Amino acid sequence: MQLIYLVAAGGTIEKVYSEQTGTVRNADSKIERYFRLLRLPDAEIRTTHVMNKDSLEMTDADRRQVLDTVRQLLAEQPAPMIITHGTDTMVETGLLLKKELPDLRYPIVMTGAMTPLGFEGSDGLQNLTESLLAVRLLPPGIWLVIHNQVFPIDQVRKDREKAQFLPT
Amino acid sequence: MQLIYLVAAGGTIEKVYSEQTGTVRNADSKIERYFRLLRLPDAEIRTTHVMNKDSLEMTDADRRQVLDTVRQLLAEQPAPMIITHGTDTMVETGLLLKKELPDLRYPIVMTGAMTPLGFEGSDGLQNLTESLLAVRLLPPGIWLVIHNQVFPIDQVRKDREKAQFLPT
Amino acid sequence: MQLIYLVAAGGTIEKVYSEQTGTVRNADSKIERYFRLLRLPDAEIRTTHVMNKDSLEMTDADRRQVLDTVRQLLAEQPAPMIITHGTDTMVETGLLLKKELPDLRYPIVMTGAMTPLGFEGSDGLQNLTESLLAVRLLPPGIWLVIHNQVFPIDQVRKDREKAQFLPT
Amino acid sequence: MQLIYLVAAGGTIEKVYSEQTGTVRNADSKIERYFRLLRLPDAEIRTTHVMNKDSLEMTDADRRQVLDTVRQLLAEQPAPMIITHGTDTMVETGLLLKKELPDLRYPIVMTGAMTPLGFEGSDGLQNLTESLLAVRLLPPGIWLVIHNQVFPIDQVRKDREKAQFLPT
Repeated sequence: MQLIYLVAAGGTIEKVYSEQTGTVRNADSKIERYFRLLRLPDAEIRTTHVMNKDSLEMTDADRRQVLDTVRQLLAEQPAPMIITHGTDTMVETGLLLKKELPDLRYPIVMTGAMTPLGFEGSDGLQNLTESLLAVRLLPPGIWLVIHNQVFPIDQVRKDREKAQFLPT
Repeated sequence: MQLIYLVAAGGTIEKVYSEQTGTVRNADSKIERYFRLLRLPDAEIRTTHVMNKDSLEMTDADRRQVLDTVRQLLAEQPAPMIITHGTDTMVETGLLLKKELPDLRYPIVMTGAMTPLGFEGSDGLQNLTESLLAVRLLPPGIWLVIHNQVFPIDQVRKDREKAQFLPT
Repeated sequence: MQLIYLVAAGGTIEKVYSEQTGTVRNADSKIERYFRLLRLPDAEIRTTHVMNKDSLEMTDADRRQVLDTVRQLLAEQPAPMIITHGTDTMVETGLLLKKELPDLRYPIVMTGAMTPLGFEGSDGLQNLTESLLAVRLLPPGIWLVIHNQVFPIDQVRKDREKAQFLPT
Repeated sequence: MQLIYLVAAGGTIEKVYSEQTGTVRNADSKIERYFRLLRLPDAEIRTTHVMNKDSLEMTDADRRQVLDTVRQLLAEQPAPMIITHGTDTMVETGLLLKKELPDLRYPIVMTGAMTPLGFEGSDGLQNLTESLLAVRLLPPGIWLVIHNQVFPIDQVRKDREKAQFLPT
């Protein structure tokens, strides 16, 4: 049984629709509900909810908090890790991790979604499924996995108009 | 084959998620895409898109426009009708129709949704399905059909906190 | 709160796919799982599982058992009722009910599905949604409700090739 | 843009429910319909339908036909490949490919499903998503990818009772 960490840091992938306000927002984490749609007989997913924010609102302190959580989990027991994060500043957080965590023994995969999990046309479950496979195959390092693409974190940027990631 | 009019006037039921802005909004009509999920061997649905607005933004002129469309369709060929509309002011528009259309020969059913069609937990397809059945069985008049409930338009109000309709 | 009986007598609507045998079959009832996808704030659904058979395998004794269950429920507390049943012999069972239950105070709606609940293209949830609305609006009697159509039980037949019901 | 071959050889993943017979069977290929649910901005999928059979009915000649198709595609233009196949004899076909194709330049990933695409609880789209990611990361060779697991084709067997694959 493969241990895989899932660190949930908010972003579009976890947004919900509020019937009272008529808006989408980050509220409680819903990612575990979607993991149950997958068959993972050989994976033990250990989920940590760090925060649930739109990534445009994340501060340097927030990114430090993600880093601290990652560091603490890997210190307890090294294992592959997925971080779900808003796509707008995913690269920024990833670059901080790359700088601060030079001696990784396993891959850390950052992913997210353009449309929230469970909304028509969502890419969320695809990206989670891909990331779960990617952490089993990638070498140590910080990666961004989305839309059937795999990027080293320092060779990728978001194209907001196209709602996709491109190599730099 | 039963002719049924579908007049689409916007509201939550037709909202879409924009990947560029990260918000839900009324854009193009998507209701016909969802009709295709239903089996309607004996119904000919004729759809008219009047507007696509959040119903809190509808003006008196907008309501008049809905009325004019309804009047024109029924003048051409009388038939049962469904109006999809934002839930916040659905009753207001319905009461205008009731006042201005005293001699209906068929029912007009107003419906909508608390969560947009195609979002997790949406009540949109349920309400469309119910309304399509209700126009076959109800007597002439203006009705509100939602969540397995049928109300005469002058005996219903929205409870916003509960996200449901209650008898007055 | 409106009491509605749901009598589940098997048929395609409840079939499941078996990964061990690679076939679809009637096993445990799954209909209540799908009711949870609907918003029914004013309905109290009381479900009774009579049997879970392909309706081509139902015997006269099976139909009697359905009749006995219906009679017993209505004797305890009269209320509208939905019977989910295989489409191939739904009319036969319905005609027995019509003959044996002459003094109904509420409608009994028979429904089912051409494709099991939860399979791509299934009509099961549509038919359940329609039936739940129909029992609120129809007069006493035995009815067949499916695909946005409403038939008195003695004026309908299944067209197997088209997978739909037609008036006789 | 990455070229990826998809060779469709039938199996449960492509089975459909027939409303006329009430059974599941292999008919036309439906796999491309499900690919459209995925975002693949950097992949060009080229699909070849070899056959659409239950894999328990595949003969040695059928397996040869799969081999010939694979060989021909790779001769024209070498590229990563996914083969969708019934799970019961997937390993057998994979071992034939391993024996007959010793000098692969790209990975060939075999996958399938325990429950057909689009049926409730199906693992089909998960397995396709994983395989599409796996062909980008795996070294040349014949692999079996399913349920977040990656096996060399000669180190895996199906456990039919559990409906999963295990290492040998």
